[in-house]
Amino acid sequence: MKATVIVELKPSVLDPQGKAIQHALHSLAFTSVEDVRVGKLFRISLTDSNLSREDLEEQLRQMCQRLLANTVVENFSYTIE
Amino acid sequence: MKATVIVELKPSVLDPQGKAIQHALHSLAFTSVEDVRVGKLFRISLTDSNLSREDLEEQLRQMCQRLLANTVVENFSYTIE
Repeated sequence: MKATVIVELKPSVLDPQGKAIQHALHSLAFTSVEDVRVGKLFRISLTDSNLSREDLEEQLRQMCQRLLANTVVENFSYTIE
Repeated sequence: MKATVIVELKPSVLDPQGKAIQHALHSLAFTSVEDVRVGKLFRISLTDSNLSREDLEEQLRQMCQRLLANTVVENFSYTIE
């Protein structure tokens, strides 16, 4: 089974890396770019256990809260394929 | 208009950061995790110009090739909302 986790800064948190990319795109003449925000993406392969969908989602939430995301400044979302 | 660009290491390229996360998840007792690969995600806001869908996609490809991705070792994909 495959899961994709996306971790992004909360909208209220400044993203200097995104701003730097935005300026770099402007200087490369991509002037239509208004804003850039950067996030992280994790592709996680899981063994096909007999976990229910809910248990799997609970595991992913735990992974995000305990390791992948800093929930003080970041939001996370996940999809399961 | 909003675009989301995902940049990931090519499958043939080793991902030590992903491996470190995989081991960390294992030591947190998430033993069902078989593999982790890490990628980058860019949320790009664009001014609503009169660009056609094809021109917009061409612009995004250019941004990836010239700045966002290192196409020697990375693949990119994008979605437009």
